[in-house]
Amino acid sequence: MSETEHEAAPGAGPTDGPGAGRRRLGVGMVGYAFMGAAHSQGWRTVGRVFDLPVDARLAAVCGRDGTAVRAAADRLGWAAAETDWRALIARDDVDLVDICTPGDSHAEIAIAALDAGKHVLCEKPLANTVEEAEAMAAAAERAAARGQVAMVGFNYRRVPALALARRMVAEGRLGTLRHVRLTYLQDWLVDPSFPLTWRLRKDRAGSGALGDLGAHIVDLAQFLTGEAVAGVSALTETFVRERPLLEGTSTGITAAGAADGDGGPVRAGTGEVTVDDAAVFTARFPSGALAVFEATRFAAGRKNALRLELNGSDGSLAFDLERLNELSFHDHTEPAVSSGFRRILVTEPGHPYLEAWWPPGHGLGYEHTFVHQARDLLHAIATGTVPQPSFADGLSVQRVLAAVEESAAKNAVYTPVGAPARARVNAHAETGAHIA
Amino acid sequence: MSETEHEAAPGAGPTDGPGAGRRRLGVGMVGYAFMGAAHSQGWRTVGRVFDLPVDARLAAVCGRDGTAVRAAADRLGWAAAETDWRALIARDDVDLVDICTPGDSHAEIAIAALDAGKHVLCEKPLANTVEEAEAMAAAAERAAARGQVAMVGFNYRRVPALALARRMVAEGRLGTLRHVRLTYLQDWLVDPSFPLTWRLRKDRAGSGALGDLGAHIVDLAQFLTGEAVAGVSALTETFVRERPLLEGTSTGITAAGAADGDGGPVRAGTGEVTVDDAAVFTARFPSGALAVFEATRFAAGRKNALRLELNGSDGSLAFDLERLNELSFHDHTEPAVSSGFRRILVTEPGHPYLEAWWPPGHGLGYEHTFVHQARDLLHAIATGTVPQPSFADGLSVQRVLAAVEESAAKNAVYTPVGAPARARVNAHAETGAHIA
Amino acid sequence: MSETEHEAAPGAGPTDGPGAGRRRLGVGMVGYAFMGAAHSQGWRTVGRVFDLPVDARLAAVCGRDGTAVRAAADRLGWAAAETDWRALIARDDVDLVDICTPGDSHAEIAIAALDAGKHVLCEKPLANTVEEAEAMAAAAERAAARGQVAMVGFNYRRVPALALARRMVAEGRLGTLRHVRLTYLQDWLVDPSFPLTWRLRKDRAGSGALGDLGAHIVDLAQFLTGEAVAGVSALTETFVRERPLLEGTSTGITAAGAADGDGGPVRAGTGEVTVDDAAVFTARFPSGALAVFEATRFAAGRKNALRLELNGSDGSLAFDLERLNELSFHDHTEPAVSSGFRRILVTEPGHPYLEAWWPPGHGLGYEHTFVHQARDLLHAIATGTVPQPSFADGLSVQRVLAAVEESAAKNAVYTPVGAPARARVNAHAETGAHIA
Amino acid sequence: MSETEHEAAPGAGPTDGPGAGRRRLGVGMVGYAFMGAAHSQGWRTVGRVFDLPVDARLAAVCGRDGTAVRAAADRLGWAAAETDWRALIARDDVDLVDICTPGDSHAEIAIAALDAGKHVLCEKPLANTVEEAEAMAAAAERAAARGQVAMVGFNYRRVPALALARRMVAEGRLGTLRHVRLTYLQDWLVDPSFPLTWRLRKDRAGSGALGDLGAHIVDLAQFLTGEAVAGVSALTETFVRERPLLEGTSTGITAAGAADGDGGPVRAGTGEVTVDDAAVFTARFPSGALAVFEATRFAAGRKNALRLELNGSDGSLAFDLERLNELSFHDHTEPAVSSGFRRILVTEPGHPYLEAWWPPGHGLGYEHTFVHQARDLLHAIATGTVPQPSFADGLSVQRVLAAVEESAAKNAVYTPVGAPARARVNAHAETGAHIA
Repeated sequence: MSETEHEAAPGAGPTDGPGAGRRRLGVGMVGYAFMGAAHSQGWRTVGRVFDLPVDARLAAVCGRDGTAVRAAADRLGWAAAETDWRALIARDDVDLVDICTPGDSHAEIAIAALDAGKHVLCEKPLANTVEEAEAMAAAAERAAARGQVAMVGFNYRRVPALALARRMVAEGRLGTLRHVRLTYLQDWLVDPSFPLTWRLRKDRAGSGALGDLGAHIVDLAQFLTGEAVAGVSALTETFVRERPLLEGTSTGITAAGAADGDGGPVRAGTGEVTVDDAAVFTARFPSGALAVFEATRFAAGRKNALRLELNGSDGSLAFDLERLNELSFHDHTEPAVSSGFRRILVTEPGHPYLEAWWPPGHGLGYEHTFVHQARDLLHAIATGTVPQPSFADGLSVQRVLAAVEESAAKNAVYTPVGAPARARVNAHAETGAHIA
Repeated sequence: MSETEHEAAPGAGPTDGPGAGRRRLGVGMVGYAFMGAAHSQGWRTVGRVFDLPVDARLAAVCGRDGTAVRAAADRLGWAAAETDWRALIARDDVDLVDICTPGDSHAEIAIAALDAGKHVLCEKPLANTVEEAEAMAAAAERAAARGQVAMVGFNYRRVPALALARRMVAEGRLGTLRHVRLTYLQDWLVDPSFPLTWRLRKDRAGSGALGDLGAHIVDLAQFLTGEAVAGVSALTETFVRERPLLEGTSTGITAAGAADGDGGPVRAGTGEVTVDDAAVFTARFPSGALAVFEATRFAAGRKNALRLELNGSDGSLAFDLERLNELSFHDHTEPAVSSGFRRILVTEPGHPYLEAWWPPGHGLGYEHTFVHQARDLLHAIATGTVPQPSFADGLSVQRVLAAVEESAAKNAVYTPVGAPARARVNAHAETGAHIA
Repeated sequence: MSETEHEAAPGAGPTDGPGAGRRRLGVGMVGYAFMGAAHSQGWRTVGRVFDLPVDARLAAVCGRDGTAVRAAADRLGWAAAETDWRALIARDDVDLVDICTPGDSHAEIAIAALDAGKHVLCEKPLANTVEEAEAMAAAAERAAARGQVAMVGFNYRRVPALALARRMVAEGRLGTLRHVRLTYLQDWLVDPSFPLTWRLRKDRAGSGALGDLGAHIVDLAQFLTGEAVAGVSALTETFVRERPLLEGTSTGITAAGAADGDGGPVRAGTGEVTVDDAAVFTARFPSGALAVFEATRFAAGRKNALRLELNGSDGSLAFDLERLNELSFHDHTEPAVSSGFRRILVTEPGHPYLEAWWPPGHGLGYEHTFVHQARDLLHAIATGTVPQPSFADGLSVQRVLAAVEESAAKNAVYTPVGAPARARVNAHAETGAHIA
Repeated sequence: MSETEHEAAPGAGPTDGPGAGRRRLGVGMVGYAFMGAAHSQGWRTVGRVFDLPVDARLAAVCGRDGTAVRAAADRLGWAAAETDWRALIARDDVDLVDICTPGDSHAEIAIAALDAGKHVLCEKPLANTVEEAEAMAAAAERAAARGQVAMVGFNYRRVPALALARRMVAEGRLGTLRHVRLTYLQDWLVDPSFPLTWRLRKDRAGSGALGDLGAHIVDLAQFLTGEAVAGVSALTETFVRERPLLEGTSTGITAAGAADGDGGPVRAGTGEVTVDDAAVFTARFPSGALAVFEATRFAAGRKNALRLELNGSDGSLAFDLERLNELSFHDHTEPAVSSGFRRILVTEPGHPYLEAWWPPGHGLGYEHTFVHQARDLLHAIATGTVPQPSFADGLSVQRVLAAVEESAAKNAVYTPVGAPARARVNAHAETGAHIA
């Protein structure tokens, strides 16, 4: 046991979960800012709502600042605290390592955890480079042979409306796909006095809107269509190139959306923004569909507007994350006089994940995606199946992001996505099962 | 300790909450169906998200069926289970009794709990009759003198968009109020083969759509305007007068919306629906505003459509519970060429309750209202203030419902709402403080 | 002149319409303010767009001020001008009298025109009192025996989306009707300095929001359901009881919505508003459906919000006049997982009236209802059928308005609508034919 | 005849318009299918609604089939018919030539008309090639020196909401522009059995969705931003490469959207689609803004979805042609707690063009853009100003389309738009005046 560990009083309260006789899985989480808080809510809640084959125990959380991480453990419900992620991995009561740190540390932690025999859940994007992602996917493949699972945290696959969209596409409701369009619009960088957080530094975040927001919409496009992006043509831009350096340490989860790093020394003056503020790209899918993607933090008034539309020969689907309980569907096989986009309120017991929640019309929120993610991961572990999205899926997204950056650097020329056989997208496999 | 009690392993895990040294408040809940599950989620989560002056401990849950209640305790995170609500009230580790049963038992339990020195949270509607509600309000008044609090669970006051709406009305953004219209539309009774659950029996539920849905919109109308309804003119209707008797026992929380009773013996055949399926009524407010209310379970396609609009001389507000993260506001003081209803995404850190949650645009769901309700109640207890809505507020709603029934029985004649001085609505008092 | 040129018959300008050999119907219009301008656009356009069995000729327009009416004739395209409506009726080239004056003159003009053997189109509401309306309906009945037609100008029946709604109800798509709710919200009286136009004087307008807006929604409710309102319970209110007297003469059609009278002498000071500003009422239909109606000119931000919703056992329909090219439909017979309100863009060739207009998605506007009204009236004249809505239909609406006023005067008591056998609503008859 | 009657001058029907003493401008139109019908409605109506400095007379219409064109003249209200466009241009009573033919004949007719001293209105796109467009712009420049005007028919600039959007951008309400996104989605080619009309043949139409729909959104982007597109990166696709040959002759304007050619001999079998079905492209503006464009006829369920959004540092605007009376505006300078996209109903008297129409909330339709276009053109003629959009503006769009095709042919490489000095966009000049 690490000297920095902070154990709660001995004994296991109800947090340990309902099924006293059931298998218990210890979770150790690295990072406790915005994502860490969201994951904690997922781990705490999943066993209270879903019938699970295995219970999750919030064993320990890890952060560099001992005082802060202990406070976070108390607040978020973790039994212990660690200040060294290697110590976290080494704990006997940690079976699963949940990585909620910035992208530059994903590869090292994830590979170490997998090599140490632990299951891994890693926040998106999988890594900051294709090389790191390849190494992680290789480690996951080795670990899979030993019965370990590795999942990447593209949580929006767990929005019920999007899981339903995937199901409807898989059922053929859209026919042959013609168009795919996804935007992810936020506006928290519109103000030029917003400070230079870690998300604006290439060494920490890898990229800007592209890796943060673009990664989500690339993954969703591949998930929903069941196809891997074939190639892209891209433009990127950094609108505000200098920003105030961050002063002091930011902590906690706040609705401000900004203070999600774990801080650093007090600085002053301005620094260079080394990532993109926005990325726009067109793409082709193997089936012939044309796609348009747009990721930005400069769309004034759009707070979290992940909006998408798919058009096929037999129907269309549309979605907006700012109205996450709704899915729009147009059935093109109906008579024209009575057809139109219908707003499906995705709160029926027959909808994905909804059997466990509230009566129709009583909507869910953002954090429920983390409950659903925990549920799906626990099911994968219990059944020994490869979880979706796998590290291979995460690598596939990383290859698309790399192709976007390469195209942007080469005058937007169409750039095929490098995709070795093992990185194929198999978005349906496990997902199809659990949402059937 | 009751013989039916089921204690979890000794020791207090992290469920007991973050602040080890803080005051601890033991909660005992009666009923564990739909409302019980929602309340449990509130109690479990509140301390993980909000900074609280006092921690809540999920001490014990109570239900008549010992096996079922123990399973519920396990699943929902309660430390113990009871089968007799009197035993629950008697527990030393229960400081607050949370009543989630059908309306016919509210008065007895609440008064007993208050008289036993416990704080009380009681689900809406406060009671099935004005007489019961008056006795409850009187008990609450007596208890208040002893420092106890009593709150009624009109949880929709805790939807951030509606708390914001109240704040904007209180700030005078609407000017002089002219029109108030609220509908609460559901559709789960459209199918005539839907069974005769307790909600369709007058002896259990008091009334139908009126007490279940109408109570919410009457409370909201009074909360938002800060005025008590002066009088009403009403029509009610029962469209389907015979329904199949419920067979078997329903358990659990499901999105089906139906199975929220705790069951009973297997029966067959059909029985009479003794409550209203729908109630429509017009009303006057003391300020001269005209109001229209509509509550129904027969609006095909409307799942949880609590929709409201307020029109004043300086502006208007509109809301739809099916899009609960949004508030529509029209500022009538702006130039006509650039004015219009704006959609405020109520997810900013400056919005009520949002300082504790996620970044802008990452919406909340239905159950968050119960987290907020728990937060406000704990604050009231810690500060010794009268919580809102108080039992007097609940009584005020009950009087309106009674006037509706009286008017409906008297050919819709305009019927003043009986309102003794002590039942005045003071919607602002405490609420204004915490959402300021 | 080119040899391929095709000149129309001498003397007959293109206004005379396409079919040189077809029957020609001379129209004489009384009044040329807002409604007169809208009707003129209908008469000018109908023959350019629809295949008609008879052509309309804009023979003469009538107003009291000779200079003004001649200018209006020039602008609006009428061949001649008259200052005495009796002279207009007497003209040989006038076959149809189109009455666009305030309600207090409807009965006198319409009955004179019918008795003189002319067809009549009369703006809504049919009259200011039931007595007048009865006399008009009787005159129409006598005239019908002579082959004349009489139609009342409830133009919203000619919004394609509402004609489609009627068709879908008639086809049984809603099943058994349960709920009917209609609001007609405007805001042009919110400003207390808005002057006392004729629409605010009982002697001219008969009533306020009730007759102006309420008449529309009562007619639509009866048209859409195919049922006559059985009884009502009503509250009315005049929020602003004194207003500035109108100074000077208002002319022309303007978007201001106000200046639609034909003016009068310059006055000063304030005067009493003698009509209602708002009327809210509940109602019952013979089938058992419950209805809610609301008409007001005090809903800040709502410019022309005629919004309605019908809920039946098999489906629901919703509509908003501010988005008049759309109809929302929920098919309750579909599986719950894929059902929802669909937005039908009512611009398909198979939709009512649309075969004559633009490609799908190229929406129509407000004034098109007058083109359609002209089309339907010309068809009725050509085929000798009773046009819809007939004067009997107009009388039926008048009886409902009278019942509303009676109920409002009697403490909202439920007041049956007086409805002699001959005033029955037969909304389907002719309409069903042309929109089939 | 009454003594108060006011007869127009003999021989001059009301079509001749209101101002007997005013200047008269004879219009000659080439083509009378979909666009011809829309333009006719514009010419017929403009003088009835707007105060004009000059009256338009529908002098003659031209088409190749004598019988058909005479029928069209009758129906659409043209005084004469021609079968040879050269004869039309030669007519003394034709002062303005309105070209509504497919793009392959634009250059020849327009240049001949300009050289013959006539004013010209030419449907969009200006031409099928940059070379033709350059020749047309040169001819327009020569003609301008003689006092003639030449306008290109980008009618959507005349949607009041878009004219308002332009005004707000010009007023600086958006601040520094960051993002521009425009889609134009239709679905009439989704069905593979839809026949090979002229719009699908490169020799007639020049291009497919690109020239038909893309031209509109490129023009709007330049109009709204006041900037010319700097460069583009594009992908195009033809999803269905063979279609049935058109059998028989199509006539008339129908909502089917298809039959808008003037037919041809009966054929059978299938033919090759030689234009694009869809074009997607990214772009840069000189100010640094990033843009995304998408034009397609394969978006099932989207009938006429010209949707656009502009994001700037101080605000954002959004619009959807399927709801053409609305403009969405977000004011980013307001406090976050009360800001959001507001829906401006663009029907106020202070909105562009609205002073002449109906009261607030009484919306306009698609064809009104042609009335407004006629109004603006007549004003330009009367005042001797260069109309907007000029042929130079049309050429500017043509250059962007050419760059799109070039980029698509070169693997999407970023392709600067060729823009000689004279083709600069001066979108504000005249437009700014009339909508101020």
